[in-house]
Amino acid sequence: MEAFRPLGERRTLIRGSGPLVETVHGEVAWACGVFGGEVVREGSDDAGYDLVLDVVADGAWGDEGFAYGREGGRTTVTASGQRGLLYGLFHVVRLGGTAFQEDRPREGHRPAVALRMLDHWDNVDVHPVMGQVERGYAGGSLFWRDGRARGELERVRAYGRLLAACGINAVCVNNVNVHASEARLLTDRLGEVADLAAMLRPYGVRTHLSVTFAAPVVLGGLPTADPLDEAVRQWWSGAAARVYAAIPDFGGFVVKADSEGQPGPFTYGRSHADGANMLASALAPHGGTVHWRAFVYDHRQDWRDRSTDRARAAYDHFAPLDGEFADNAVLQVKHGPMDFQVREPVSPVFGAMPRTRLAVEVQATQEYTGQQRHVCWLGPMWSEVLRFRPAGEEGSAVGELAGGGLVAVSNVGDDPYWTGHPLAQANLYTFGRLAWQPSADPLRVLDEWIALTFPSAPKRLTEGLRPLLRGSWRTYEKYTAPLGVGFMVQPGHHYGPSVDGYEYSPWGTYHFADRDGIGVDRSAATGTGYAAQYAAPWAGVYESPATCPDELLLFFHHVPYAHVLHSGKTVIQHVYDTRFEGVEEVEEARRVWASLADLVGAERHARVAERYEEQVRGAREWRDQVNSYFLRKSGVPDARGRPIW
Amino acid sequence: MEAFRPLGERRTLIRGSGPLVETVHGEVAWACGVFGGEVVREGSDDAGYDLVLDVVADGAWGDEGFAYGREGGRTTVTASGQRGLLYGLFHVVRLGGTAFQEDRPREGHRPAVALRMLDHWDNVDVHPVMGQVERGYAGGSLFWRDGRARGELERVRAYGRLLAACGINAVCVNNVNVHASEARLLTDRLGEVADLAAMLRPYGVRTHLSVTFAAPVVLGGLPTADPLDEAVRQWWSGAAARVYAAIPDFGGFVVKADSEGQPGPFTYGRSHADGANMLASALAPHGGTVHWRAFVYDHRQDWRDRSTDRARAAYDHFAPLDGEFADNAVLQVKHGPMDFQVREPVSPVFGAMPRTRLAVEVQATQEYTGQQRHVCWLGPMWSEVLRFRPAGEEGSAVGELAGGGLVAVSNVGDDPYWTGHPLAQANLYTFGRLAWQPSADPLRVLDEWIALTFPSAPKRLTEGLRPLLRGSWRTYEKYTAPLGVGFMVQPGHHYGPSVDGYEYSPWGTYHFADRDGIGVDRSAATGTGYAAQYAAPWAGVYESPATCPDELLLFFHHVPYAHVLHSGKTVIQHVYDTRFEGVEEVEEARRVWASLADLVGAERHARVAERYEEQVRGAREWRDQVNSYFLRKSGVPDARGRPIW
Repeated sequence: MEAFRPLGERRTLIRGSGPLVETVHGEVAWACGVFGGEVVREGSDDAGYDLVLDVVADGAWGDEGFAYGREGGRTTVTASGQRGLLYGLFHVVRLGGTAFQEDRPREGHRPAVALRMLDHWDNVDVHPVMGQVERGYAGGSLFWRDGRARGELERVRAYGRLLAACGINAVCVNNVNVHASEARLLTDRLGEVADLAAMLRPYGVRTHLSVTFAAPVVLGGLPTADPLDEAVRQWWSGAAARVYAAIPDFGGFVVKADSEGQPGPFTYGRSHADGANMLASALAPHGGTVHWRAFVYDHRQDWRDRSTDRARAAYDHFAPLDGEFADNAVLQVKHGPMDFQVREPVSPVFGAMPRTRLAVEVQATQEYTGQQRHVCWLGPMWSEVLRFRPAGEEGSAVGELAGGGLVAVSNVGDDPYWTGHPLAQANLYTFGRLAWQPSADPLRVLDEWIALTFPSAPKRLTEGLRPLLRGSWRTYEKYTAPLGVGFMVQPGHHYGPSVDGYEYSPWGTYHFADRDGIGVDRSAATGTGYAAQYAAPWAGVYESPATCPDELLLFFHHVPYAHVLHSGKTVIQHVYDTRFEGVEEVEEARRVWASLADLVGAERHARVAERYEEQVRGAREWRDQVNSYFLRKSGVPDARGRPIW
Repeated sequence: MEAFRPLGERRTLIRGSGPLVETVHGEVAWACGVFGGEVVREGSDDAGYDLVLDVVADGAWGDEGFAYGREGGRTTVTASGQRGLLYGLFHVVRLGGTAFQEDRPREGHRPAVALRMLDHWDNVDVHPVMGQVERGYAGGSLFWRDGRARGELERVRAYGRLLAACGINAVCVNNVNVHASEARLLTDRLGEVADLAAMLRPYGVRTHLSVTFAAPVVLGGLPTADPLDEAVRQWWSGAAARVYAAIPDFGGFVVKADSEGQPGPFTYGRSHADGANMLASALAPHGGTVHWRAFVYDHRQDWRDRSTDRARAAYDHFAPLDGEFADNAVLQVKHGPMDFQVREPVSPVFGAMPRTRLAVEVQATQEYTGQQRHVCWLGPMWSEVLRFRPAGEEGSAVGELAGGGLVAVSNVGDDPYWTGHPLAQANLYTFGRLAWQPSADPLRVLDEWIALTFPSAPKRLTEGLRPLLRGSWRTYEKYTAPLGVGFMVQPGHHYGPSVDGYEYSPWGTYHFADRDGIGVDRSAATGTGYAAQYAAPWAGVYESPATCPDELLLFFHHVPYAHVLHSGKTVIQHVYDTRFEGVEEVEEARRVWASLADLVGAERHARVAERYEEQVRGAREWRDQVNSYFLRKSGVPDARGRPIW
């Protein structure tokens, strides 16, 4: 066994200068204050130090990367830039004691994705329907309250620290639906954004702003927001310049245009490339980026019209524009073609726009996945998306195609646990780590999160938690909307079941269940043609029920209830079985959590236990409503004769 | 042809004294100011007058009745009380020119029902979900705005005038759901109620107040609201005394207790008779009445539990208490067992409580009947209820059993037309007139309303309007929820179709449609036993699908889609046919209204025309959703091959 100094006696040397190096120094100094040890700034000799954190401006590791190694009783982190040093420090923290015990040859770490971003759907004014945080399930906003900047800047700084520890380097501080007060963050309320940016900057987190496409009209008093109008372009250039004067490292704009009622270039007969490029050009002189969301579809669809398919919309709108977007314009694409359902195919846009910078947008906030009252760790789902290869095995994975970044809708609020459900923190952490390395094994990331969250956890806790989180997404899928059919939620708030909740709505989200069968025919041969938006081999795989994966069957095909899945079960029996299994799995998870009471702080344990009660109730409600609905409609009894109401 | 003086030269004599006689005088003086003529106060000689309005305190016509006649070129109204004189004057107004042209032998008019009341579900504070007026579709409240008394007292006085012209003599000025601010109307905010009462009093309208059963706790600081607790009883006595000190003619309290979350005597293990009698005893010394609502049911029902039947609840809760209520306690019973659906059977409570003063509660505000965007004149429905004889042909009608009064939930707000939809005024007027005379022919009342609303209408207008309103209730029924099944509305706001909207909810409102059939078995033999709550002959009539009227079939029975109605049609074909017919009837009504454009003021015409657009849109949506739902579920095609989506 090698000799090494105990925690309280370790000596750390930090070399380099700049604000983020100060942050690193502050972190180490803080740790020394708590655990003992010493931190020294500068010095040419590494001898006698346990840890050396060094900035060497040779560019070898890029702005954010670092090299890590341990040899001769000394752990070293070498970065080419300040951010890299910060991430290197958090790498040491993640390794914990082993960073000071095990020799390791020098190895490089660099983020695979340059932009790793959280979008906050936080409103400045409390929205009469959506509240302070749209689709927020973790209390209020960290940034805004009742129309004003919240002003709790130390908390924002702590949030920046949390994000950096997860590897996240960008935050958009307001909702993509930009209402009247929020619009003004771009102009006369810019100071409030600058205050936030100042708190996030020390942790390497750049600030972005959602803006309204109509800003030149509503803020600038111009008669038009036409992106090709010279006055409009000048207005945006001026606005961008003023933003950068206040926030020199400002990240850029996020725009939801021509989407669910938001204004956009369609009003002026211009393309989305015209719109995005106009903003890109305003940002370019300052190094900023526009994130243009691809979530454009007809939300006033007539449910009677079966030829319109919302799933097609992003591809239909954007694929023809490939190559037309400016270099600093990023097209931000939801991971699936619909809207963050528990199961969707990967958006075909990722395979269709090789000449466009694409960002993948996922949803950490659990809008459709239990609203942080249900445990639903989304790591495996995101990993599946990021590892999906649109052109087949030989082609690139989505994680490699995401040159524009990885973006998650934030699941964080002013809740003491940050995320409402304490276990929902795992989604935040996993997102950050997958954004750093999209090919990472999500199960390993989960283990990291468990180890960091419960630092002195005995094996019983670790081994209890692991399966409970690992399986939670598939469990959630089991008791909710089956076989990729999606939705079936209560309209508006989207919590809890309502099988027909969106069936006769204008939102384009239908399952077409009748007494004989269910599902949406999206084949090219007989359906909406959505399957043909994929390249080979996927177009072929999805085209036929014979090759379509079970879990996406009803997304792509309308089949009889008696259709036999690859699993050997009929669709209807699958519906029943998975509903019963899902509930049993939640009941078992609740039991496991209860058994861990002595190993988790009382308050945290109670919070999770209370949410498991709600999850069990909710899962049973899903099971019973879905089963009753399909029994009533299909007339096919459960083969195992279990109670269906 | 008899000689009579033209309008502008008529002379009126008014005899009697008191505030309402002053009101009568003011009305006549106002008319003389507009049309010419002269009004004289007092005088023993009737000669030379065209109209004599006389109060003779002999009690012959009761407090509100009057005698009317015309002889020898003189019209006379003789009342025993001031209110009678006011109603007599409005009778003359209703007769219009004929009151001065046609001799008529002296005839007596007295209201059949002493209490003719409008309940306003107006909130003082804007409720976050329900708004200023719960279930209000006519703008804001006349009484309250944003937490304060609105203070537009002249408008309240004009409202009193409108009510008196309809025959209504009581108003409850706040919502039966009593929230924090509203509770205080009983105590420190009583002055605001007194201000309203002062404006309504000159038109013979007494003011009532909704109070919370928990008032002794929330306002009085007592530890309990137990109705048998002496301190509680004293608190209420004191509160009532203070109310009467401020409002000497105060009508009484309206109470929604143990209902949809409101507090009540159940909390203390007391009966509803205990609760009502305690309040009755506080009011009795001052001549006041408590209106105790019978709308008590389990609104947290489990939809899986088919043995609980919300329809049974009012009878089950209250029938055993018959004879236990104080003389000045009125049990206010919704006309049907559920909740103001377009079609329900008459509540069995009316046949089950002969020793209790019952009031019939109907809903003028069109919560479930088109929300004053659809034309739905409810006269025929209310008339059917009032003429229903719970004990069969030999027994009394509900209108005769309603010794406690007739109550409507108000459809009035601060809209310039009072009721949002100008034609919804017909409901207000019809309610008042049916309350005066429950046996009246509603079609005659409708004609009265048309004549009064369009005083110089040519025949084309009258004959256009008449069928359009007459048939509107049945039209609405046709395109919405079929055969008495009820609901099928969007949850929460209750506007527009959602066939399964309440199917898996805790509200007790289910249709149990499956692939084979639909309806709720409420028979005694095989169902919930609700049918047995009726006396003969109705228990027998409703018990069997063979005798149950078609329009209530699905309320009482679960039948196959192929079940043949008395009409000769199958249930499923009836569903399709009525949906198509309903839409056609609305389209025709829209056409008729459009053809009347030259006969109605432009603004009023436009308002109604715009609402017909919405009604046509809404009716088509109902048609298509209901038809698609049942085609998908039953698999039975429309016999006439019309498009079902």
